[in-house]
Amino acid sequence: MKVSRRALLAGAAASVALGKTVAAQAPQTPADPSKVRGRPSKALGQRAAPEKPQRQPRGPNSSGTPHQDLYGTITPSDLHFERHHAGVPEIDPRTYTLLIHGMVERPMIFTLADLKHFPSVTRVCFLECSGNLARTAPPETTPQQLAGLTSQSEWTGVALSTLFREVGVRPQATWFLAEGQDAALLARSIPIEKARDDAFIAYGQNGEAIRPEQGYPARLLLPGWEGNTNVKWIRRIELSDRPFMTREETSKYTDPLVNDTARMFSFVMDARSLITYPTYPVTVSRGWIEINGIAWSGYGKIRRVDVSTDAGKSWMQARLQEPVLPKAHTRFRHLWHWTGGEPVLMSRAVDETGYVQPTRAELLSTRGPGAAGYHLNPVTGWIVRPDGTVVFRQEPWG
Amino acid sequence: MKVSRRALLAGAAASVALGKTVAAQAPQTPADPSKVRGRPSKALGQRAAPEKPQRQPRGPNSSGTPHQDLYGTITPSDLHFERHHAGVPEIDPRTYTLLIHGMVERPMIFTLADLKHFPSVTRVCFLECSGNLARTAPPETTPQQLAGLTSQSEWTGVALSTLFREVGVRPQATWFLAEGQDAALLARSIPIEKARDDAFIAYGQNGEAIRPEQGYPARLLLPGWEGNTNVKWIRRIELSDRPFMTREETSKYTDPLVNDTARMFSFVMDARSLITYPTYPVTVSRGWIEINGIAWSGYGKIRRVDVSTDAGKSWMQARLQEPVLPKAHTRFRHLWHWTGGEPVLMSRAVDETGYVQPTRAELLSTRGPGAAGYHLNPVTGWIVRPDGTVVFRQEPWG
Repeated sequence: MKVSRRALLAGAAASVALGKTVAAQAPQTPADPSKVRGRPSKALGQRAAPEKPQRQPRGPNSSGTPHQDLYGTITPSDLHFERHHAGVPEIDPRTYTLLIHGMVERPMIFTLADLKHFPSVTRVCFLECSGNLARTAPPETTPQQLAGLTSQSEWTGVALSTLFREVGVRPQATWFLAEGQDAALLARSIPIEKARDDAFIAYGQNGEAIRPEQGYPARLLLPGWEGNTNVKWIRRIELSDRPFMTREETSKYTDPLVNDTARMFSFVMDARSLITYPTYPVTVSRGWIEINGIAWSGYGKIRRVDVSTDAGKSWMQARLQEPVLPKAHTRFRHLWHWTGGEPVLMSRAVDETGYVQPTRAELLSTRGPGAAGYHLNPVTGWIVRPDGTVVFRQEPWG
Repeated sequence: MKVSRRALLAGAAASVALGKTVAAQAPQTPADPSKVRGRPSKALGQRAAPEKPQRQPRGPNSSGTPHQDLYGTITPSDLHFERHHAGVPEIDPRTYTLLIHGMVERPMIFTLADLKHFPSVTRVCFLECSGNLARTAPPETTPQQLAGLTSQSEWTGVALSTLFREVGVRPQATWFLAEGQDAALLARSIPIEKARDDAFIAYGQNGEAIRPEQGYPARLLLPGWEGNTNVKWIRRIELSDRPFMTREETSKYTDPLVNDTARMFSFVMDARSLITYPTYPVTVSRGWIEINGIAWSGYGKIRRVDVSTDAGKSWMQARLQEPVLPKAHTRFRHLWHWTGGEPVLMSRAVDETGYVQPTRAELLSTRGPGAAGYHLNPVTGWIVRPDGTVVFRQEPWG
């Protein structure tokens, strides 16, 4: 039987050594696995030995998701980014409590069992740190290093509106404080409308109990809002008729603008996209290449993702993976034929409000060159060099 | 400040010791976690120490998903059920190949890199073993023991129709053989229509590389079809104009019916539902209880799930968690007020074709008392005893 291999595939085969998550060292595998009985069933599965995706700790308080190694839209829970201000606390679920007090009829303390006893909700959504851009990135930058502080899970918990009915929130309450039980006692002020809309207290993540770095045993989940407002290890909610002006709100999460003005309470994450393939460190061959990545918006659904292979001179519409969910990572794909030269690949998200992901220049024109590291969502580029190596395209910042 | 606790919540608190996946032994946690710096960021996350969900191996070739411990619809990859006939083979992804031959213009061998090079598809769907019912189950049976051989993942791969265009499938081909690389060389005959519809070769699972027990580095995925046809560790596809009548098709996966007839090729999994809370081994208290579980159908979307608390005399419509995806586990929920007595909880799925999940009696009337262990999807019940303990309701089988 004659077995042929076409040029397209021969090209692809050449890149196998740099393929996704396939490590350089071979595992000790049988020459013919069909001749050997395999290992028996186990209580817990493990990754295949050659697969070693990892978060990349940047100091003790942060680690990013390896988007260049991932498929689809769900982030495996052990690869969900982490960001904390005083480490990951260890909390006993049997003594955990959440206090809700302040402008309420009946201040109450909820145990974890109490929270699980209420009617539950499940929702797939992204969670992104508002400081999710490496502003000084060398060509050898991966998507993980550039923007690894966004991840996606299927979260389960109890609607905040359910708990607020239970305690009887008073009509004059317009804000609430959410406070964590970590050593930073991270606290943020949240407008009460978000509780009426879609806020919930999550205790489940991707089918199981929420992971320690994501707030075990329970956290606040504010779909589409900047990560730090989704207070982890939540222990207290206080209703009030004004924001609390916490340390985080004054020292950290206020954004300088042009003309010496500043913006407080930048809650919603603007639309953004990130090419995850091909990017550094893969090497590609000439021929057909599926450019793909993720796009998301804190305002709702992604309406469209445009892809450019000429540094933004012309754009083509990418396919979106269905179902497109609101406030969720959406996989986009664009089949492209690389014939040579040194193309620059870019993606640009458009959300259902019509908002278009800005270029760096557009972003700087409103935010000013002194823009702090928060809420930066510029279009970014990847250069495919003539030899097939792919590197991040640096741009001057300000 | 006065902190009250309402009767509803006091009742819930009493059940904390038997709460989901909260182990009996306390971890060594600080008395006040907010006074201690937490652990630093890590390359890979881990479950919280008190959380110990596990599959339950039933002999060396099978283990089920602990549905009583899970939330939402995604099954964590290390808890996805496993079922194999000769153990889990270890396959080197760098030497892995898939051969497609037979009635094709161009027989071809695809490496893993080749498969990843093609345009990709992502889809959330369930996978269920056709032998997913413990027919002799004592009252102390968990959902995992009763029907743990169904799980759900977000799968990514290449459409079989894409590969079939590549090799040029001949017009007279109507079936294909799919053969695995495990020591059982499990092989099944599949009608070619499924390849035109939605079959794909999956190499991604829940965002990362597919796990060894689910077919690493690549498997066939036939959404909605019985588990064993979704051939894992796939190494060969042969196109033909007739089924191959493999060992599995004659000795195992043929279903005896009434009147000494038999049914071959029972590919599609019929609609089914499974209550996952409250079930053995939890204990509940009188008051409000959210009955919840999962429902699915190999024919498409779940249209409705009915819940009964009186052993099927009367039914109420449960809420379905959006988005309801075709051929996917769909979470249903029904808020119920338990006032006393010994209620029997049941659920009944209806899919978009109008098919209604049968009772045991209805199933036996068509399948006969000699029905083998395959494709059994009866409505099942859980008894809530006056003391709040919950047990499986046994029913005579045949």
